[in-house]
Amino acid sequence: MTSKMKLAVGVDIGGTNTVFGLVDAEGNCKAQDAIKTGDYPVVEDFVTAVQERVKALISDCNDPEIIGMGIGAPNANYYTGTIDFAPNLKWKGIVPLVALFAEHFDFPVSLTNDANAAAMGERIYGAAKGVNDLVMVTLGTGLGSGFVVNGELVYGHDGFAGELGHTIVEKNGRECGCGRKGCLETYASATGIVKTAKEFLAKSTDSTLSGLDEITSKSIADAAMEGDKLALDIFDYTAEKLGFSLANTIAISSPKLIVLFGGLAQSGDLIIKPTKKYMEDNLLKIFQNKISIVPSKLKASDAAILGASSLAWQSCN
Amino acid sequence: MTSKMKLAVGVDIGGTNTVFGLVDAEGNCKAQDAIKTGDYPVVEDFVTAVQERVKALISDCNDPEIIGMGIGAPNANYYTGTIDFAPNLKWKGIVPLVALFAEHFDFPVSLTNDANAAAMGERIYGAAKGVNDLVMVTLGTGLGSGFVVNGELVYGHDGFAGELGHTIVEKNGRECGCGRKGCLETYASATGIVKTAKEFLAKSTDSTLSGLDEITSKSIADAAMEGDKLALDIFDYTAEKLGFSLANTIAISSPKLIVLFGGLAQSGDLIIKPTKKYMEDNLLKIFQNKISIVPSKLKASDAAILGASSLAWQSCN
Repeated sequence: MTSKMKLAVGVDIGGTNTVFGLVDAEGNCKAQDAIKTGDYPVVEDFVTAVQERVKALISDCNDPEIIGMGIGAPNANYYTGTIDFAPNLKWKGIVPLVALFAEHFDFPVSLTNDANAAAMGERIYGAAKGVNDLVMVTLGTGLGSGFVVNGELVYGHDGFAGELGHTIVEKNGRECGCGRKGCLETYASATGIVKTAKEFLAKSTDSTLSGLDEITSKSIADAAMEGDKLALDIFDYTAEKLGFSLANTIAISSPKLIVLFGGLAQSGDLIIKPTKKYMEDNLLKIFQNKISIVPSKLKASDAAILGASSLAWQSCN
Repeated sequence: MTSKMKLAVGVDIGGTNTVFGLVDAEGNCKAQDAIKTGDYPVVEDFVTAVQERVKALISDCNDPEIIGMGIGAPNANYYTGTIDFAPNLKWKGIVPLVALFAEHFDFPVSLTNDANAAAMGERIYGAAKGVNDLVMVTLGTGLGSGFVVNGELVYGHDGFAGELGHTIVEKNGRECGCGRKGCLETYASATGIVKTAKEFLAKSTDSTLSGLDEITSKSIADAAMEGDKLALDIFDYTAEKLGFSLANTIAISSPKLIVLFGGLAQSGDLIIKPTKKYMEDNLLKIFQNKISIVPSKLKASDAAILGASSLAWQSCN
C-alpha cells in the first residue's frame, strides 16, 4: 500500500481574480483553478464557490492528504483570520474569512497578506529555501514586503508588520496614497519609477522615452536595456532610494537574503545591481558584503498560489 | 521537604566593571558581586575569577537550583558564543567566552550583547512583561537597541541585528564613530544631545546652559526641567530624530511597546512626550495611537544583571 500524496491548498485573493490550487512540498502546483472575485459581492457566496472548486480539485487528484489551506489576501490579519476594510474588495468592514472557510474543511486554514505569503513561499519553495532570516520585497503597483525572522513571519503585535513601502525615505518627499510624504513606495514601485521618468523627462528630452505616448515601468526597462542614458539614470535614482532603505532595514533585522519580486524585479540586474551598490554604500561595516539581493525563484504564474500554500506547510512543520 | 529555589546567573561585562548575580523568576537579585574587568588582561584569568565568585554566591544562597547563566557583553555574538573584536575590552580578536565558562558549570550558558539582554530583561521582569513584540532602546553614550519578535530576540542571520543606532536618519548628517554620516545615535544619545546643545548655543546664548563650563545630558535635562527654552528646544530636536526613526521602525516590526532605558531616558517625559508626538506624526494610519513608549521598569543598579539573567529564563521556558 502506498501512502497518500500530501498537498497543501493555496488561495490567493486579488481585487480582480482569485486563484487557488494544490501544491506539494516541493512547490509543484498539481492542479489549479480561478474565479473572478468581483462576481461575488456577498462573501458567503464567494466562499461557497471557492470551497466547491477546491473540493473538485482534491477529488481530481486521487484523494490526497490535505495538510492545510493558506490564504493570501489584501488587508488580511493573521491573528484574527479576517480581512479588514480592504479598499479593493467588494466585501465591506471586517470579513471573518478563516471562520467561513473552516466550516467547510477539516484541515487548518490560515490567512495573511500577499507579501507575507510571498515571503514564506520563497522560504519554503523558492530563492530563500531554508533561510531563517530574510526580507521579501514585492515591487508592483506599490511596494509590499514580508519579513522572516528566526524562521517565522513577522506579524507584529497587531498583524500589520512589514510595511517597508511606507517607511519614509525622503522627508517632505513625494505625496503617497497613504496621506503622508516621501514613502519608499512613491519611488520604488512601478508607479514610482513612472513618476521619476516624468520628472526626468520634464528636464531633458534626450531619450527614446520622450517620444512615447505612455510611459510604463516596462518601457523604461526596455529603453534602459537598449542603453538609453536617461532610462538608466531613472533606474539609478530608484535604486538609490531602495538601496538606502534596505541598508537601514538590515541594521534592524540583519537578514541573510533580500528577495525581489514583481514587475520591476523582472528587470533583473537593471534594478538589482545599482540597488546592491547603494545598499552597500549605506551599510554599517559589520554588514557589508554579506547580504545578497536575488530575484524570486517562483514562477510568476504560480507564485501567488505557492506563497499562500506555503503558510500551510509552515504551520505543519 | 521544600523544593529548591530556582535562580538564574546573570553576568554583565562592561569595559570598566563586570557585575554578576543570582536572580529569581520574578527579577529579584538575591546576591551579587563585581570585579574590575580591566584587572584581567588574560580572558582565562577573568573567567576563573568570575566563576569562583559565582560559585561562592551560589553556596551562600543555600544551594539553589541554577537553571542557567546569561551573559551580556559588548560585541557579543549569540550564535557563536564569542566576543568579537570588542574595542573597549582588553581581550583581542575572537574570545570563545561561552566555551570558557561552560567548562566550569553543568548548566547552560548563553551570551548576547547588552541591548539584547536589556530587551529580554524588560520582557521577563520589567515594563514589557509577557509582551511578544517590543523594541528596547538604550540611550547611553551611544544608542543601543534590542528587538523582540514573536517572543524571541532578533539576532539576524549573523547575530548582529538590532543596530537601530546606526540607521541613517539624516543623509549627510553628523559624522558618526562608525565612519558614516547621519546615524541616529549621533543625535539621540547622551553624546548626541550634547552635540545638539553646542550647535544651538553657538547660535543663541539666551540659556542658563551658556554659563556652564561643561555641558552634559544631565545639565541639559536640569535646565529643561527649570523651563529653559533652549534646553527644551534641544530635547525637541533630539525627540524629532528619535520619533521619526521609531515610526519607520514600527512600519517594519509593529511592536506593541517601545521601552527606553539609560541616562537620557531617565529624563522621563522630557524625552518621551516629544518623541511620542513626532513618532505619531510620522506613523502610517494603521499604527497610530496604539504603540506606547515607556521608561524601563528595571532598577538601574540591577538592570544589567537582570537583563543578562533573563537569557537563562528565556531558554528554560
